[in-house]
Amino acid sequence: MYRDVLILYCRAPNAAPTETGMSRLALSDSDKQARDWFVKTTKALGCTVTIDNIGNIFAVRPGRREGPATFAGSHLDTQPSGGRYDGILGILAGIEMLSVLQEHQVETEFPVGVVNWTNEEGARFPISMMSSGVWAEEIALDRAHNTREVGGGTATVKSELERIGYLGSTPASYRSVPLAAHFELHIEQGPILESEKQKVGVVKGVQAYKWFTVNIDGRDAHTGTTPLQSRADAMLLAARLITHTHRLATAHNALASTGILTLSPGSTNTIPGHVSFTLDIRAPADATVEAMEADLKRDFAALAAGKDIGGLLANSTPGKPLSVEWRTDFVSPATIFHPDCIGVVRASAEAVTGDSSLVRDMSSGAGHDSVYASRRCPTSMIFVPSKNGVSHNPEEYTSPEDCALGAEVLLQSVLRYDRMRAEGKTQAI
Amino acid sequence: MYRDVLILYCRAPNAAPTETGMSRLALSDSDKQARDWFVKTTKALGCTVTIDNIGNIFAVRPGRREGPATFAGSHLDTQPSGGRYDGILGILAGIEMLSVLQEHQVETEFPVGVVNWTNEEGARFPISMMSSGVWAEEIALDRAHNTREVGGGTATVKSELERIGYLGSTPASYRSVPLAAHFELHIEQGPILESEKQKVGVVKGVQAYKWFTVNIDGRDAHTGTTPLQSRADAMLLAARLITHTHRLATAHNALASTGILTLSPGSTNTIPGHVSFTLDIRAPADATVEAMEADLKRDFAALAAGKDIGGLLANSTPGKPLSVEWRTDFVSPATIFHPDCIGVVRASAEAVTGDSSLVRDMSSGAGHDSVYASRRCPTSMIFVPSKNGVSHNPEEYTSPEDCALGAEVLLQSVLRYDRMRAEGKTQAI
Repeated sequence: MYRDVLILYCRAPNAAPTETGMSRLALSDSDKQARDWFVKTTKALGCTVTIDNIGNIFAVRPGRREGPATFAGSHLDTQPSGGRYDGILGILAGIEMLSVLQEHQVETEFPVGVVNWTNEEGARFPISMMSSGVWAEEIALDRAHNTREVGGGTATVKSELERIGYLGSTPASYRSVPLAAHFELHIEQGPILESEKQKVGVVKGVQAYKWFTVNIDGRDAHTGTTPLQSRADAMLLAARLITHTHRLATAHNALASTGILTLSPGSTNTIPGHVSFTLDIRAPADATVEAMEADLKRDFAALAAGKDIGGLLANSTPGKPLSVEWRTDFVSPATIFHPDCIGVVRASAEAVTGDSSLVRDMSSGAGHDSVYASRRCPTSMIFVPSKNGVSHNPEEYTSPEDCALGAEVLLQSVLRYDRMRAEGKTQAI
Repeated sequence: MYRDVLILYCRAPNAAPTETGMSRLALSDSDKQARDWFVKTTKALGCTVTIDNIGNIFAVRPGRREGPATFAGSHLDTQPSGGRYDGILGILAGIEMLSVLQEHQVETEFPVGVVNWTNEEGARFPISMMSSGVWAEEIALDRAHNTREVGGGTATVKSELERIGYLGSTPASYRSVPLAAHFELHIEQGPILESEKQKVGVVKGVQAYKWFTVNIDGRDAHTGTTPLQSRADAMLLAARLITHTHRLATAHNALASTGILTLSPGSTNTIPGHVSFTLDIRAPADATVEAMEADLKRDFAALAAGKDIGGLLANSTPGKPLSVEWRTDFVSPATIFHPDCIGVVRASAEAVTGDSSLVRDMSSGAGHDSVYASRRCPTSMIFVPSKNGVSHNPEEYTSPEDCALGAEVLLQSVLRYDRMRAEGKTQAI
């Protein structure tokens, strides 16, 4: 049943990337078109639509009883050259859920709904998960409204909300629009399900991460006239530190990555006196990230001083000491989803696949609207496989079968949660 | 005797860099001033001055007999923010040599001279050792003449030679202005003499070097969603390769340096799929550089494929294979100076210092006009200590005592060589 709708959005597996990408930047004309379609479609399915003053759209189908709705939610906006699945899948599967309920005249105990969160990507307006953050009252409405588009344009979130007609009158807050629960179907954006030949990820939370900039100061010197023992080679030290970081990530069962590295002065025949690089450390638990940070600070200082760590300086020429200085750029603590929601997602996934070996518990490596939703209501997520783990790219691909499977798990999760509520078995956050 | 002149050009050791730097770009107005002074001074010391059509200035003091002069030579031009010693010292010491000969009415057997080579630095007009190269007929005159200044200006070498009045009529060639020998006093530009507490370097040649660009292709991926074993992390591989390069340099008693590294896409939360870095490999012998290159190509390919070399992959998570591609950017074979010249420099240095432990044989790490001179006449160089090994920088410093010592070695070397010629003991190249 899901396939008919979803398949429209799935490209042929061998299509060229240019035939398959999606560029629907937040609050652009194409975002307005998708929003208009969302409102029209959900109203046609019997929903009441509420738009808040950050442009979040809540479509709610009534249940037997009054009360906050159990929501499926995600986002319609994309990266500048994104794929067709990131965010969009969760919204379409939510609408398909409403359609199935309507078609089969299913009456839920409590209302159920679908929410489209504004500007999850933070690509055009550079705050990620912006409007679920405003709804959770963790990001100030003013700050969000006044965020200016990247690339030197003059448009702000507020001016664009007005321009496309999505500046609603309802205050953006969990107090004005409470959610009973939030379930988000999303592509994994990583390779684990595919490589493990599994179908559904039960997402128990979102990894903690910390971003740092590491600055190394050595001394510029001529590559031809400076013997190895006289060098304070910032690039060589950076190479050793990055090599070591990977080893520590392995030891801690964590992730560590360097995505930016700059050096100066930048000449083939000058040993760089300065290198600056980023470090992105992630692990499911905050404590692991903290332990990694402490170990790395200790070991970087030792290596900079010429003390060997793990054989890195073996068969090398001792040089001059260098200095290493750390700056913390961003801290994102771990998010732990709600056991009730995790439980219904797991039960639904096992029921839909009929094979618990196709289902795995996972941490999300990336942030999602569910992070902010989980601060104010029970939340969990459902992951489906991403081909080659690729995302934020026109090559992003999830098979129609996997999309449909995920949509079925989403529907069952919402219905199971509704039943738990009816039976008084759910817990608050 | 040398100190009176040389001390004028030596800064106080604790002076601020801004009081001590020198910016005399090739063929600029300040280069013209220094040239005019050079011509006037050498003529006053009884020299005949010849200017060739690349602006090289040859000042020759007659000897008892006719024949090519034995030359002291170096260059008056500097880097944009250079020091007061690189090049200048060799010219001043040459003029001081003429002055001493004149003052003491010394008659040499053959003529002796001083040569100022145009645009050694290649800073304003980007060909290093340009005009000794033209004189040696290893760089075409047209190419040199048409070389345009860096930074978008329209001046060429030829237009600037005309403007400042130094486009001579003598063809720039060793055939028109033969040199009997070329001795160059120069600051070491490295830390060896200082750190070994030695005073004079007898330069036996110039290291071979090769420049490469190494391109790594892996795959961009999200830092949060991509497990270590699913990564093709180009930055991590680059870090390992640079770490390994240093080890191989240690093993080969060679030098290896990475002065430029760029990566893409360049975002804190994206594992770089592509890294490009330069590799500058140097050793006194061509064979060592070739052996390093072969070893590195073999080992880089192995590491890219995930095969451990020297424990670099210990305690790490095996990832996906990457590809490594090499490009050769520049090849400079080793230069071996002439045994006659090396011999007289060594004998002079031991005589002047009175202590052979203060004298060492060296390879030059950097290129000099003596490289091209040595292709057409017997050549050697004399190095004196550089404070902290610093050069191409206002911090460049050599003590007045060391400058004077070097100048005395230069004078003695030229006189000893003249005597060898008189005795018929010199060998052709």
